[in-house]
Amino acid sequence: MATHRTLAALGQPILYHYDPLFLETFRRTQEKAARVFKTKNDIVLMQGEAIVALEGAARSMTTPGMKVLNLVQGVFGKGMGYWLTSFGAEVFELEVAYNEAVDPAAVEDILSKNPGIELVALVHSETPSGTITDCKAIGPIAKKYGALTLIDAVSSIGGLEFETDEWQLDVVVTGAQKCLGGPPGIGMVSVSPAAWERMESNPASPRASYVSLLDWREKWLKGGVFPYTPSVSDVHGLESVLDQVLEEGLDNAIDRHTLAAEATRAGVKAMGLELWAANSEIAANCVTSVRLPDNLDHVEVRAHVREKYGVMLSSGQGAGNLMRLAHMGPTSSGMYPIVGLAALGRGLKDLGMEVSVGAGIDAAMEVLAAAE
Amino acid sequence: MATHRTLAALGQPILYHYDPLFLETFRRTQEKAARVFKTKNDIVLMQGEAIVALEGAARSMTTPGMKVLNLVQGVFGKGMGYWLTSFGAEVFELEVAYNEAVDPAAVEDILSKNPGIELVALVHSETPSGTITDCKAIGPIAKKYGALTLIDAVSSIGGLEFETDEWQLDVVVTGAQKCLGGPPGIGMVSVSPAAWERMESNPASPRASYVSLLDWREKWLKGGVFPYTPSVSDVHGLESVLDQVLEEGLDNAIDRHTLAAEATRAGVKAMGLELWAANSEIAANCVTSVRLPDNLDHVEVRAHVREKYGVMLSSGQGAGNLMRLAHMGPTSSGMYPIVGLAALGRGLKDLGMEVSVGAGIDAAMEVLAAAE
Amino acid sequence: MATHRTLAALGQPILYHYDPLFLETFRRTQEKAARVFKTKNDIVLMQGEAIVALEGAARSMTTPGMKVLNLVQGVFGKGMGYWLTSFGAEVFELEVAYNEAVDPAAVEDILSKNPGIELVALVHSETPSGTITDCKAIGPIAKKYGALTLIDAVSSIGGLEFETDEWQLDVVVTGAQKCLGGPPGIGMVSVSPAAWERMESNPASPRASYVSLLDWREKWLKGGVFPYTPSVSDVHGLESVLDQVLEEGLDNAIDRHTLAAEATRAGVKAMGLELWAANSEIAANCVTSVRLPDNLDHVEVRAHVREKYGVMLSSGQGAGNLMRLAHMGPTSSGMYPIVGLAALGRGLKDLGMEVSVGAGIDAAMEVLAAAE
Amino acid sequence: MATHRTLAALGQPILYHYDPLFLETFRRTQEKAARVFKTKNDIVLMQGEAIVALEGAARSMTTPGMKVLNLVQGVFGKGMGYWLTSFGAEVFELEVAYNEAVDPAAVEDILSKNPGIELVALVHSETPSGTITDCKAIGPIAKKYGALTLIDAVSSIGGLEFETDEWQLDVVVTGAQKCLGGPPGIGMVSVSPAAWERMESNPASPRASYVSLLDWREKWLKGGVFPYTPSVSDVHGLESVLDQVLEEGLDNAIDRHTLAAEATRAGVKAMGLELWAANSEIAANCVTSVRLPDNLDHVEVRAHVREKYGVMLSSGQGAGNLMRLAHMGPTSSGMYPIVGLAALGRGLKDLGMEVSVGAGIDAAMEVLAAAE
Repeated sequence: MATHRTLAALGQPILYHYDPLFLETFRRTQEKAARVFKTKNDIVLMQGEAIVALEGAARSMTTPGMKVLNLVQGVFGKGMGYWLTSFGAEVFELEVAYNEAVDPAAVEDILSKNPGIELVALVHSETPSGTITDCKAIGPIAKKYGALTLIDAVSSIGGLEFETDEWQLDVVVTGAQKCLGGPPGIGMVSVSPAAWERMESNPASPRASYVSLLDWREKWLKGGVFPYTPSVSDVHGLESVLDQVLEEGLDNAIDRHTLAAEATRAGVKAMGLELWAANSEIAANCVTSVRLPDNLDHVEVRAHVREKYGVMLSSGQGAGNLMRLAHMGPTSSGMYPIVGLAALGRGLKDLGMEVSVGAGIDAAMEVLAAAE
Repeated sequence: MATHRTLAALGQPILYHYDPLFLETFRRTQEKAARVFKTKNDIVLMQGEAIVALEGAARSMTTPGMKVLNLVQGVFGKGMGYWLTSFGAEVFELEVAYNEAVDPAAVEDILSKNPGIELVALVHSETPSGTITDCKAIGPIAKKYGALTLIDAVSSIGGLEFETDEWQLDVVVTGAQKCLGGPPGIGMVSVSPAAWERMESNPASPRASYVSLLDWREKWLKGGVFPYTPSVSDVHGLESVLDQVLEEGLDNAIDRHTLAAEATRAGVKAMGLELWAANSEIAANCVTSVRLPDNLDHVEVRAHVREKYGVMLSSGQGAGNLMRLAHMGPTSSGMYPIVGLAALGRGLKDLGMEVSVGAGIDAAMEVLAAAE
Repeated sequence: MATHRTLAALGQPILYHYDPLFLETFRRTQEKAARVFKTKNDIVLMQGEAIVALEGAARSMTTPGMKVLNLVQGVFGKGMGYWLTSFGAEVFELEVAYNEAVDPAAVEDILSKNPGIELVALVHSETPSGTITDCKAIGPIAKKYGALTLIDAVSSIGGLEFETDEWQLDVVVTGAQKCLGGPPGIGMVSVSPAAWERMESNPASPRASYVSLLDWREKWLKGGVFPYTPSVSDVHGLESVLDQVLEEGLDNAIDRHTLAAEATRAGVKAMGLELWAANSEIAANCVTSVRLPDNLDHVEVRAHVREKYGVMLSSGQGAGNLMRLAHMGPTSSGMYPIVGLAALGRGLKDLGMEVSVGAGIDAAMEVLAAAE
Repeated sequence: MATHRTLAALGQPILYHYDPLFLETFRRTQEKAARVFKTKNDIVLMQGEAIVALEGAARSMTTPGMKVLNLVQGVFGKGMGYWLTSFGAEVFELEVAYNEAVDPAAVEDILSKNPGIELVALVHSETPSGTITDCKAIGPIAKKYGALTLIDAVSSIGGLEFETDEWQLDVVVTGAQKCLGGPPGIGMVSVSPAAWERMESNPASPRASYVSLLDWREKWLKGGVFPYTPSVSDVHGLESVLDQVLEEGLDNAIDRHTLAAEATRAGVKAMGLELWAANSEIAANCVTSVRLPDNLDHVEVRAHVREKYGVMLSSGQGAGNLMRLAHMGPTSSGMYPIVGLAALGRGLKDLGMEVSVGAGIDAAMEVLAAAE
């Protein structure tokens, strides 16, 4: 969901991409993105869903035969492992149950026992599981062992504390469509000097390709020429959501997501439902996953809630039999958590579960009322 | 509140008002309005808030010295009486408490005892009171006694059953900004042949004036020339909301408002609050008024709920110490009633009242769940 | 024609009109309007086409029997005279040919010979004639003889030098839809203290009416309560066009209109066509009127040019057999004058006139090329 | 440049991509695209600039060692050759001067003399050169020799006759941002059964990649699951431009582009400038390239015209010292050709060339006037 301001930005007139006004807009947008990443590193704005940036980053950083540690606590982390393997890396995989989180100590253990691991890949916020990985701890650990890091922060930046430079992260990928409430048409990548060096020296790094980070570096960052026509509308939309989060203040935006997540979790528990995440410490700010009983299927629940109450919920996409209540971007504000809780709760009741909808709303409102 | 589609229509390019495309749009919009009024009478689209049309209609229909019956069950009806008096009419006023509704039998009684009453004025939906007047019964009664009718249907059309022709109504005024969910920039008036005749023969009827209905008849309806530049944007917005309600089906739109009103009233009662309207039969579909205890002021409640929960509620505008939960246009759909109930309920609890918010949500969801 | 930014503003979400954000917007818009009027007087934003404000102002300022001097050099000035007469004023009318301008000396002559004239009414820019009245000279003359002034500046403010306070003007009315490039839904009025005093003491001044300026003063300016629901969308649109002109700089906006007018007049003359205005000194900045030969009718010309070249031109609305090339708001910028000239010129050629289109374009481009 | 309707579509609310309404929109958009391609083949909508689709198509169709004939008459065709070579193909290149067009007879000659050529690649409209390749003749020739075809039709579809099925074309790529006047965020590909077969059997065909056509086939076309979150806004924008061209009629749209191109070429010649294309038969409908004298640089010309007249022109991007007047999408309608001609002509005159701007406008208007 996007704010009206974001939609209006997406509908702005489409300038010729070499019009001086657009060149300025593009550069200004990069700078604003860097402020949201909290980094002094280069920012590349790749046109396409965030996955184009993840693929570009993963391919650029991987040389056949290199050792990579991949952390898995959900389907997105698992997918990264398939990629790394297919690119020819020797993959060490640390996988936990999809409602649990990887322990930084276990990461250190692997790194210390397996010298020569050159890259650590992780997903900061595993959207389908609704869980987070402790990127803050793991970043410095990787550095300590001389490994570069590749972070999927698609659904975390803007809603969760994130410090690219302070946490010493090399390649970080995010998208506009999650906590920033923007369009899914642009992938943003932050690249450290060490990561650029790796890409430049990697013969397998894509060049003259849509997924190439090096093309963007050479043509645009150094040469001022776009590798291809950028999507002017999406850049306008992206600048708008960056403006909105910077005007609000990143900390305030994170607090907003935290509050919505707390209200939602309180509501879920008070309704008598079970949170998917093993504990609140690892529960994501952007989405709350709720375990479904075996006799209920997410397809049925989603269809019922959509049709009856007009609310479209998400599933676990393979992570488990669960429903997701999203609270990211605009839906992390105001009364949105109440809407999701009431619709899901009543929907499950309609389908035969025992659910105390009112108790859930009371609990969630208690959290909202207590906020400053 | 307006849908995105309505907002997009308001933001369409502004054509020159004599461009053939706009002339066509204007006429098409009149025809669509007639379908919503359910009338074969002429439709006049006056530029300005609906009150411009009410003033124009009242002035046009009133000759100094004529007898008028004015029905009052709220502040809008009361205001009409002040106008009629100031225009020189001899006003018979039938006034009831502002949480009650006028009895059609009492209307007949007055008409039968006071021959020579030429006009009956009433407000179909008294927005601040959240009550309705039985227009369906009173229209034919007025006709029976040879009186013309002047109906303020500003907040009823689109959300409440309304039959201009079947109920034999002469001058009916509505606006786009209430149940139609449109912009407040255009007043719509339906005028019967008998009403036109009255206006033409009335020397006090405004001519060469912004509030003149006759100008619109002579210049535009008969001559194809606008009396002044119409607001192209507002006409676009109006056509869009008429399209939306006609596509949905007027009956479906009314059912939607009825359901939202029922859910809201069930929620209010279950929370332990008191409805303002004396009984559900006279409660409006477009807004539910809730009585406040003497120790709470609507200004304080509104400010608190707006700041804490981001929901802006209305007051009684003089009708009494009450709060209004609007459910009209888009806010009569989906989960909106839940949002209003939770915000108001919890807000009142924050301010010291005993309110069972959860019980209210349960009751309201029960109504929504039971709907087909 | 409106800019995309203006359209986007018109399509912004419609807030409840008593939402604190909207109250702030409304007040801010008044202040911005005052800066464009160049006045410290009160500003009233009346909802409706500018004519609602003209009517309100004329009615408020006129008492039956008072002496008024009305200056006429076109159909709008003539219409003001009809109004003043119908309101009961004793009207002195100074009328010149509709392609000429009133001489300030003649105004002084009348005022000096007819003591007791309390009001001077004039149209600063007579749109259909494409001519201007010397408001700068006449304002102080009126003051010298103790008369108040009522100025129709609907199509001048934003495109022509205008100094409400420096020129000592009492009631000035403008609209957003001409040189400001905005929506035609709001009339703006600047009212001096002396004018307020006159209105207050005038028993014929409208009260409790849509056209009442006093209602706006008492309810809104003094009481903070709207006399009726304002058109939120139109206020958004108005604020946007005021922002745009203030960001550009009023002087720059006027220069832009001046340049477009000069290019257009040069083009018209070089094409071999005849300007309607008797001389360039009295030609308006907002529109260039072009005399048609007797054998060509404006209806035919407009229909042909609209259909063949997609350009919609205006007529003289009764001022004479002429065509108007508008260059106001966005159409006074860039290459717009060229579009109008080429379409009109070629259209007239198609209809049998001898027109050197290319020579006209050369002359107009020469003017544009010479501009800094 | 995009129409307001297109911009409004881009600014529509962003639905969840698995909302039933969006799934329906996506499928409907594919079908509308097929009607514009004039094909019964599958349509794949890849998210990203059209080049993502070109890369995906070229990679999928090329196996190391296979023989490919690449036709080159400009920089885009040249680029395709670099790609094909880098993918390991044995490339036969038929290259002509960049203001000339490939002769279909020469294509047949090569194919007949080099059996085993499996693929013919060509660019239908070489945008920077402003020239076209005779796709209609070459398609069947390729088929005759058993070769598949890979067509870059990015700037031709919607503005130039194009018949995917009738011309027997296998893989055709287009974008929305050229003659369709849409956003540059989606690449559209039409794939014949023979081409799918080739891709499936090609081990080098990308899989599990952003540039993979097979992913779209397997996940979406067969499985109903998106390979990644599609850009909802861009799909809305794309559907809108497809609607617009289908409502207008494809033939009418092509006629519109043809007329604008003819008017522009007539204007260029009459101004005394030189067309870049060797002759009118090979000049593109979407853009007219104009040769610059050696002493003028396109950078200087573009900067001057942009600053002085507000018109942004394009360059040859390496094809030669030329300027481009675009007339595609909305800029191929109405008076747009006049704007471009007057701005370029006068700009060149300002910079010292002898240019008869007026004569050019006269010639261009003559073409427009002669059109039915």
